Parts: sequence; C-alpha cells; structure tokens
Amino acid sequence: MKYIIIGAVAGGASTAARIRRLDETAEIIMIEKGNYVSYANCGLPYYIGDVIKDRDKLFIQDAASFKRRFNIDVRVKTEAIEIDPKNNELTLLDLDSQKTYKESYDKLVLSTGAVPIKPPIPGINSSNVFTIRDVHDTDLVKAVIKNEDVKHATVIGGGFIGIEMMENMSHLGINVRLIERAPQLLTFLDEDMALMAKTEIESHGVVVDVNNGLTEIKDNADSSKTIVLENGEEFQTDLVILSIGVLPNSFLAKAAGLDVGARGGVLVNEFMQTSNSDIYAVGDVIEFHHPICEASYPIYLAGPANKQGRICANNMVNGNTKAFKGSVSTTIVKVFGKTIGATGSNSRMLTNHKIKHITSVTHGSSNAGYYPGASQMVIKIAFNPETGVLLGAQVIGQEGVDKRVDIFSTYVQNKQTIDDLMEFEQAYAPPFSSAKDPVNMAGFVANNIMDNVMHIYSPADAVEIGSSELLIDVRTPLEFEAGSIPNAINIELDELRNHLPELSKDRTIYVYCEVGLRGYLASRILSQHGYDVQNLTGGYKFWKNTYGLGIQELVKA
Amino acid sequence: MKYIIIGAVAGGASTAARIRRLDETAEIIMIEKGNYVSYANCGLPYYIGDVIKDRDKLFIQDAASFKRRFNIDVRVKTEAIEIDPKNNELTLLDLDSQKTYKESYDKLVLSTGAVPIKPPIPGINSSNVFTIRDVHDTDLVKAVIKNEDVKHATVIGGGFIGIEMMENMSHLGINVRLIERAPQLLTFLDEDMALMAKTEIESHGVVVDVNNGLTEIKDNADSSKTIVLENGEEFQTDLVILSIGVLPNSFLAKAAGLDVGARGGVLVNEFMQTSNSDIYAVGDVIEFHHPICEASYPIYLAGPANKQGRICANNMVNGNTKAFKGSVSTTIVKVFGKTIGATGSNSRMLTNHKIKHITSVTHGSSNAGYYPGASQMVIKIAFNPETGVLLGAQVIGQEGVDKRVDIFSTYVQNKQTIDDLMEFEQAYAPPFSSAKDPVNMAGFVANNIMDNVMHIYSPADAVEIGSSELLIDVRTPLEFEAGSIPNAINIELDELRNHLPELSKDRTIYVYCEVGLRGYLASRILSQHGYDVQNLTGGYKFWKNTYGLGIQELVKA
Repeated sequence: MKYIIIGAVAGGASTAARIRRLDETAEIIMIEKGNYVSYANCGLPYYIGDVIKDRDKLFIQDAASFKRRFNIDVRVKTEAIEIDPKNNELTLLDLDSQKTYKESYDKLVLSTGAVPIKPPIPGINSSNVFTIRDVHDTDLVKAVIKNEDVKHATVIGGGFIGIEMMENMSHLGINVRLIERAPQLLTFLDEDMALMAKTEIESHGVVVDVNNGLTEIKDNADSSKTIVLENGEEFQTDLVILSIGVLPNSFLAKAAGLDVGARGGVLVNEFMQTSNSDIYAVGDVIEFHHPICEASYPIYLAGPANKQGRICANNMVNGNTKAFKGSVSTTIVKVFGKTIGATGSNSRMLTNHKIKHITSVTHGSSNAGYYPGASQMVIKIAFNPETGVLLGAQVIGQEGVDKRVDIFSTYVQNKQTIDDLMEFEQAYAPPFSSAKDPVNMAGFVANNIMDNVMHIYSPADAVEIGSSELLIDVRTPLEFEAGSIPNAINIELDELRNHLPELSKDRTIYVYCEVGLRGYLASRILSQHGYDVQNLTGGYKFWKNTYGLGIQELVKA
Repeated sequence: MKYIIIGAVAGGASTAARIRRLDETAEIIMIEKGNYVSYANCGLPYYIGDVIKDRDKLFIQDAASFKRRFNIDVRVKTEAIEIDPKNNELTLLDLDSQKTYKESYDKLVLSTGAVPIKPPIPGINSSNVFTIRDVHDTDLVKAVIKNEDVKHATVIGGGFIGIEMMENMSHLGINVRLIERAPQLLTFLDEDMALMAKTEIESHGVVVDVNNGLTEIKDNADSSKTIVLENGEEFQTDLVILSIGVLPNSFLAKAAGLDVGARGGVLVNEFMQTSNSDIYAVGDVIEFHHPICEASYPIYLAGPANKQGRICANNMVNGNTKAFKGSVSTTIVKVFGKTIGATGSNSRMLTNHKIKHITSVTHGSSNAGYYPGASQMVIKIAFNPETGVLLGAQVIGQEGVDKRVDIFSTYVQNKQTIDDLMEFEQAYAPPFSSAKDPVNMAGFVANNIMDNVMHIYSPADAVEIGSSELLIDVRTPLEFEAGSIPNAINIELDELRNHLPELSKDRTIYVYCEVGLRGYLASRILSQHGYDVQNLTGGYKFWKNTYGLGIQELVKA
C-alpha cells in the first residue's frame, strides 16, 4: 500500500507515524509545503515572548529523523497543487526547483490545516503586518521585535492566538493594544465571563477595544503605522498581528470535487473518510458534527487533530473500524495571572441553536481554604433543565482551573448529568481540593435549581430590579457598606428569621450575598415561610465583575 | 419532625445543615462528644507542621454559629451512650456534669466516625505516644513539640496520616523514623509504585522500615522512649505517633442491635438507612458495597462522607429517593516533592478479589515538554482485558498529578473503558497539557495491548529474563552506558531495521527503552518481521525506580 499524507504537523504527522507502526511494509510519503515537520505549533507565541527560549525545543522531529525512525519519505518545501481522484494521482510542486511531478497513491490523507483570514482592508499587506500560523511567520515577527525598536504593537482579534500574542508581547515590555470587532473577547465564553478576561488584560496595562474593528492601516513616514478603527479613532503602532480567525485550507479538496461543508471544511464520516473512499482528512481542514449543537463545525484544536490522526491511520490500514465521536470544544488559555477554560457549548451558542438550558454560576476554592495557596475560581455551567445533562462549563481563576475544565470535559463528552457532578469523587487532601470540590458544588447548586429548591436570577436581571421588587443583601453590614447593588437593603442572614414580620409577601424578594451560599440559605428560610424568592447566581462578586462593572463606575461618578 | 445527629464533623454537620435547608420547621439536635464541631479534620497534620499557622482556620463553624445560622441545637461535650431503637430514644451523657438524660427522636443519624487502632503492645499507653484523630489529639502533640525538646519522632504506620505526620514533623526539623509492618507503605498503591514513595521519603532523610512492626515502647530514665522493633532493633525516640489504622466507631450501633458488616462498619442501604428504618448512618462508621471489588468496605474519606450527608438528609426529609452509589476510593497524598494519588482498585486488591486484569505503566509530561515547568509523572492503570473497563489508576509525580487522578476517577466511577481514555478531550494549551495528554497516552498504550499490537512484560519479569531469551536495550549507546538492565545488549531503535539479519527468531525478544515508546516502536518493527517480542511496561525508568532498585545496588557493589 502506498500512502501519501499532505501536511506534516499535528494530524498529518500522527497519521503517518501510526501507519508505519501498523504496517512495516507500507510506502509512506509525507508532503509539507513549509520547511518544518511535526513542530510545536501551539508554542509559537511563547517562543516570540521568550517564555520558550530555545527555538530547537519547538521541533519534535525533522525530515531526517522521520526517515530514520519511521522509514517515511518526508518531502518538505513541496506543495500539493492538484488531486486527480479518478486516477488516484497527485500533482506536486517542488518549491525550490519550481518543477512539478506526479505521484500516485492508494490512500491519500489531507492534513492541510487552516489559513488565516486576511480581510481586504487598506494596508493589510503593509510591512510589519503579520499573521502567526507557522514557524516562518514566527521567525519574521521575532526578527522584527529583535531588530527594530518595537515600542507599541496592535493585535487585531481577541481569540486564542490574539490573546496569547498580546500577553507574550506585553511580557517583552511592548505596549499592546487589542482590537476586537465582536462585542466581546474569547467567543468560546459567554459575555459575562469574557468581561472578566477583559478586566484581567486591562489590569496589565493593555488597552482593549471591543465592538471596534480595524478599517485601515496607514504607512507613516518612519517605519510606524497608523491604525484606523471603525469608531474613527486613529493611533500609531510599530507592529500589527492579525489574528482575526482562520478558515479550513480546503482549496485542494474543493478543486478535486470532495464534499465540503457550510463552514468550508472538508466533510468526513466518523472514520475520517471524505466523500472519496480513498481520501481521508484530519485536523483543521475538516468540519465535523458537533456533539451538542447538532451542526457541523471546524475543530481548530491540536488535541482532536492528534486523535483523528491515530483513528484515520487505523481505518486506512485495517478497514473502517474506529470512529471519531467529535469534539466538545474543550479549550484553555493563560491570560496573565488567570487561566480561562471551557468545554461544551456556552449559553450564546446554545441559544443560537435553540437548545433549552439553564446557566448557574458558582465560586469554588482551588484547594481547602485553610491550606496555603488556595485561590478562588468562578464556574459557569449550562445544563438541560429537564434531563440535567451538562451542556457546557466555563471556568476562570488561577490554580486548578485546568483540572476542573478537564473534569467537566469528561462529563460533557459522555453526556452526563448534574447528578454525576454531585457524585464526582475527587482526590481530596488539603493541598489539592476541598471535601466538596468546586465541581461538586456546581452540581449541588444546579441540582437545587432543577429540584426547585432554589430559584435564581442573573446579574443581567439584577440591573432591572426596580422599586416594585425588594432587593435584600444578606451579607454583613460591613460587607454591605463596602459596596452593594443599587436599591438593595441590608438584612444579614443570621438576623433574617427575626425580620420576617417586616417583610411583605406581596412582592418577589430578590436576595444576594457575596458568592451565592448565604443567599441560598436566605432563600430557603424565606421560601419555606411562604415568600416568592430568588437568589442571585454567582452572588455580588460575579455581578460586580460583570454587569455591575459599568454601574459601579456610574455610582462612583 | 425531630432529628438527632450524633457526631458533628464532616458527615454529621453536612447532614444537619442540609436538613435545615430542606425543612425550616424541623427540630434538629446535633450531639458531639468533643468540644468542636465541623472542623477541618484533614488539616490537622498540617497545623502540627506549621504549614497551617492559624489554629482558627481549622474551624468552619462553632456551636453558636450553627445555632444562629441553621437554628440547630448543638450540644458539645455530650456523649450518646445508648440507643433505644424500640422507643426511638437516646441516652445522653453531659461530660461536664456527668449527668445522663434522655432525648427522643423521629430520625437518628449516626456519624460517629472511626477510632484509631491501638494494639495491646507493651508501653503503648506511655506518655508522648499519640494518635491523631481530632483537635484534642492535635493540641497535645503540638504542645509536646513546642514545649519539649523533640529531636526524634517515630511514626508507626505508613498510611495517609502516618505519611502526613512524618512529612510535617520532618518539616519542623525533627528527625523522623517511619515504621510499617506491611511489606510496603501506602497500601492503596501496588508494591512497585509504593517503592517510589519510599525512595522519595528516604531522599528527605527519613529512615523508613517496611516489613517491620513495633513490639514494645520502653520508658527511659529521661523523658525519651526506646522503640523495639520486630527484627530486634532498638532505638531512642522522643515522640511516637500511632497511625496504624482505624476501625468504624460502631459500638453504639452494635449495642442497639443494628446490622454491622464483616469489617465492623454499620451496614446501610443505598439511601444511607441502617437496618432500623428510623436510623441512618454516614461517614467513617459505615461500610458500603465497593463498586469494583463487589465487597463491603468502610470508606475513610471526607469527600464521600460529605456527599452521604447531603443524600442522607434528602432521604430523611423527602423519603428515600436519592441513592449513594459507593466510593471508588479516590485518594491523594502529598509526600515532600511528590504527589501520589490513586482511584479504583490496585492490582493487589484485584488479584485478591479474583478480578481479571492487566496493568500498564506509562510516563507523561505534566504540560508540553517545550514549555517551562513540565515534570514527568508515572501512571499505572489496571483494566479488564476483555471489556477494556478501567478498574484503577495510580499516579506519582509532581505538577498535574491531582488532575490526572481526578480524570481517571470520573472514568472509574462511570465504569468507562480504555476507548474512553483515548477519546478524553483535554484542555490543551502549552502551560497545561500536551496535544496527547498523559491520560490519552495511558489509553493508547492499553489499547495497543488489548488489540495485541503490543505485548508487554513487567519490571518483575525483567529480573527473571535469563540467557535463554534475548534482552535488547533500544536506547542510544550513551543512555545504555549510563545504566541498563543486567544481560541486555544494545541495539539503538533507529538502527534496528539494519540488524534484523543478525537476530534469531527462535527465542522471544524482550525489548526496552527509557519509558516505553521506543521499545514499542521496536516491538512493532520486530513483530511485523515475524519475531515474538515483548516490550517492558514503563521502560527502564520504571524498572530502575522499582524492582531494579536492589539489583542496581548489587551491580554497583
């Protein structure tokens, strides 16, 4: 059997190596347009930021070592320019000699990745305007930062690469401004959680614009640029990183007549096989059925790409037996002192897909509060209110965020429920968790909501609570005086039972505390005494860090 | 309804608070023999070690705050001395006044915990011989360390409390000797993994004896003691911590005629109800069906106790609707620079219960190897070779061990398989994981074993490989020269294809590399060329740290 793999990074390299492990006699050719194979794509921003100091660390294998270890014929600087699916033949272009030649295959794998979006904006092709997709891009940016006097950089796009580039350049002492056309950064988050990311970034001196796109890049007399934004503002910068997004690099597949989805990705079945039975595809170039949203999406993630590579190789060598079950979009990003991660679908995405859900916000401690080093994280989960199936989770905090995202990921992947979150048996000792882990707490609170033991309102609702309803802050007077939601009155939880005679049952009572626990206890006391009561999900702390942000400033002013 | 809860720590306090949240009008009495309620039991060794400096941090609530917040009548220094299950009545002893009185109940909860084992060894009741079970014990030990010149301490028993006390006293500059009668420390681990724990402890200057019990404690002329061990050795010490183990504190239950299991715990159904329908029990006092071993065991863990409390309260208030599904023994302990955790059943326990299984050892990096701070962990999993169901996992390392134990815990709890481990979608960015997480790698390797893509042998087998078989080290000559398994020859992986003509097919070839990956690649090359080949699970590194320990010393000597 003769296999050709186009693309030699995550998915492609995984596929090629696995084919060899399964078939010592196969002929395997791996084609790569660039000069490098199997490198650490996700490490590139950190190499620019000098967090990874040694460039060699980015390279896992090279063409020679692939040949030596796996007996694979790796052809770098070679571009696949046409597939002839009728004759199982490929036209290749040697980029050095600029000569084309043909190569036949029994099975072909497309692992051509994605290409950065470059909108037709005036000045987008100026010098010192870069995208970050491969080693070549990275070397260019690194050289500019090293050799030119880069005092100010502008990052266009607040997704993963944009955020990581922003942080890494900031780490080098460069003043950075981050521009995002959408109303929020990091669209894998809901708007409230994204506000916390924005606050964290701003607290490190980075200027952040949301709801504001790039309209022009003007060359100045010196090497600097002038950036023009949608709102008319102009400012000067030395370096521009475009990280607006990517699209599946499916041009070759389209030209060959392979089926392509609505979002531009090559369509594959669960065996990673395209509409042509001799052609498989893996990684950023495909789109795949999303297990929660019941729609087809590209998956721009290295983890799934690697897994697909293994599955694809198994199926090509042994027949279609191993199925890929899709990605639940488990993602994470370090943003200065915070870690921000998510799995499954957020509320906005669920709403767009008309999937019924409730969201609940809780705070939890990374480890036992009495043990040194504990830090608090905020968790927002979305679940089906009837079945209790967990649909998604978003987590922001410091220590232990990655752990909780991973745990939620297993539950989302396996379509498990709020009951399962409650039963999660964590590895508990004081340095690692609490007797009730934040994952359990998220489950307990959601269970109370499902069982109608507690009714909740959101920070967005809190803004609209007027004088016709009663808003009670059940924290201590000291906490209340340090800051509260406008129009709230203060009745401390431990005094609440004594104040019942004063409270009318004619109107809904909205309670809140710092994070939600005391509000919940207050809601239990009140509702069992016949009051209609709701508790603020996530408490004052979540309100203050999200929808309360502007309002507090208003009050201060 | 009138509820009485005996025992006011983890399970009891959780039960009482939840009853109040569900029933504002209930009469709730919580009885506690000691002076403290709802305190951080698991923090006690760390308070002794000055890691937790503020004693107040150990207390979550006190009797007064329980009364204020939950309207619960908490009676400390009160001992329940008899249950009259026919008349739903309890006899209580006020420890201050020494007066007894009766209290009736509608529902009774036993959360009486466990009692430390104190074997009838001469001298066991001497001064400065302590168990660590509650705040009182802790205060005593803390006072001795503060006020007396404790230069040397002896810990009897290498379980959780013993290890944590050993570490914390060592942290205070005390010379510690750790004595364990069993052949290994930390019996939740297999012997090989426990050897690594022993090495870590010894590397911090602690003397560790295994296979060696305490036979006598002799009082010396000064305040010191002489410890006499089973092997006849005697040494002097200033302080003795007994952490031999605990037994369910089920005396009251037994006297009342409640059903008690073979291991001394109160038997409860899935609703936490004892053999008397008005009496429930939670926490260390019960024993419960183990989901993997299909036998009944006590669960001495705070996490399950807290969960049982919530379930128990729900069932007492709303009728038996919420079921506890058992504990899969997910545990973790910090041992100096290492974190050691496990979930499910280890190989020894599976063998004892005649449960068919295979074990596989892998090494993984806490985060991407090219990103700073990555450290290696070793993972040993046990799985059913036919169904692939994951039966247990043990993990030792530094960063990220707790995360992987928690992830494995979800899979063990949900009776999931090796396929699920392969599909686990981790939150991947370079600071947090790798494109293939150690959990995935454990799955990939186990899958290769199940699919007969790879055959493995263990470090214990390696000791017995003689000259009739061929043992090949496929690492580089440099690695080979730095240390190898006796009788091995060296053929580097990348040269293996060239050496095939020299290798006879008449005997089994045993290969190994540093951690197992290159050995696997070598085994694929060899087996596809018709050789019978086996790869060392966990590689040289695991062998060196376990069964190779003594052998290396032998070779050195």
